[in-house]
Amino acid sequence: MQIGIVGGTGPAGRGLAARAARAGHQVLLGSRDAERAVAVAEGLSAAQSVSVAGCANADAVEAELVVAATPWDALVSTMQPLATSLEGKVVVSMANALVKEGREMVAVYPARGSMAAQLQAALPRSYVTAALHHLPAAKMEDLTSELEADVLVCGDSADARAVTCEVISSIDGLRAIEVGSLAQAGPIEAFTAVCITINIRHKVHSTLRLGGI
Amino acid sequence: MQIGIVGGTGPAGRGLAARAARAGHQVLLGSRDAERAVAVAEGLSAAQSVSVAGCANADAVEAELVVAATPWDALVSTMQPLATSLEGKVVVSMANALVKEGREMVAVYPARGSMAAQLQAALPRSYVTAALHHLPAAKMEDLTSELEADVLVCGDSADARAVTCEVISSIDGLRAIEVGSLAQAGPIEAFTAVCITINIRHKVHSTLRLGGI
Repeated sequence: MQIGIVGGTGPAGRGLAARAARAGHQVLLGSRDAERAVAVAEGLSAAQSVSVAGCANADAVEAELVVAATPWDALVSTMQPLATSLEGKVVVSMANALVKEGREMVAVYPARGSMAAQLQAALPRSYVTAALHHLPAAKMEDLTSELEADVLVCGDSADARAVTCEVISSIDGLRAIEVGSLAQAGPIEAFTAVCITINIRHKVHSTLRLGGI
Repeated sequence: MQIGIVGGTGPAGRGLAARAARAGHQVLLGSRDAERAVAVAEGLSAAQSVSVAGCANADAVEAELVVAATPWDALVSTMQPLATSLEGKVVVSMANALVKEGREMVAVYPARGSMAAQLQAALPRSYVTAALHHLPAAKMEDLTSELEADVLVCGDSADARAVTCEVISSIDGLRAIEVGSLAQAGPIEAFTAVCITINIRHKVHSTLRLGGI
């Protein structure tokens, strides 16, 4: 599938781009600054032996499936101007609203309950899902690193959830687990604070696994 | 250790009581209604071949370590009248503020960010930790059922976190993972909505595991 990653030059975007490209997807890595996107995509492609193309965010959203990987506080302001191109599309939100407090990350609560809900409100004609929050970015980007992680997926459209799960499960080492509606996005996003705080305290790159399923 | 479970006659309390008793702890299972507590403790002891004693909540809080296992909306009203007995003690909150919406559980957000923070405010002279949220109650109570689950522990007192972790890790199949301050309790509690919604959708009793730690 063709996958566009808006705000793809950060750690979350790069890691997803590398893994999705290795899985055979055609990846468009977008940035506000197209030149920077091209440079990051070339560096990533060379380092991880994959083929990722860099482009402007406005070009990345032409892909079949779009992933928003911007910093959380730039999510709505980056995506809303692209709303027309995103009409009728599945848009996957990776955002977590977190702030650093001492040696912990703490969750902050968006007014609509989650960043994914903020995005859905900004893109009423798109099908927003929330996914890919709890992955260790460093391990994602290094394709020599073995990953075995569960990815929780939620959203209000059953079709959009299914497509999101399908793409995620096509990536080696990731298992998509469908949770439910966008009402689940708040707890899923906020739980990232717990995962990162554990990583800081225990000096690890933890991954989320669910047993018994 | 002597462990008192306030509101211990529900599924969460019974499961913890059975597992803690098998691990060699002296368990006082409390209820508002002491007669009911005695009946439940006797039934549990017979069914699971353990020794659990039933008593009034006011007697359960005389234990060295106290666990609050009431329904979340009865947590503060049950615990606050016991504040004097709980002074200086570690009090473990298992509460999750959740409501059912169709086939999903959704998280609701307590005014202070978590039920554990509500409890800490009601018991300013106790050391509140939050733990034991994501365990499948049915598997906990059935001692023939194999469990392999991680338990996330947070709280503002490092000593209280350490004691809580020690007790949890003494229980077969449970691994305690120290997260951080009580600021982590909100996401930990809310994430229970995700776990239960997954269980409903996929008809499983899932357990939380973290890889890489």
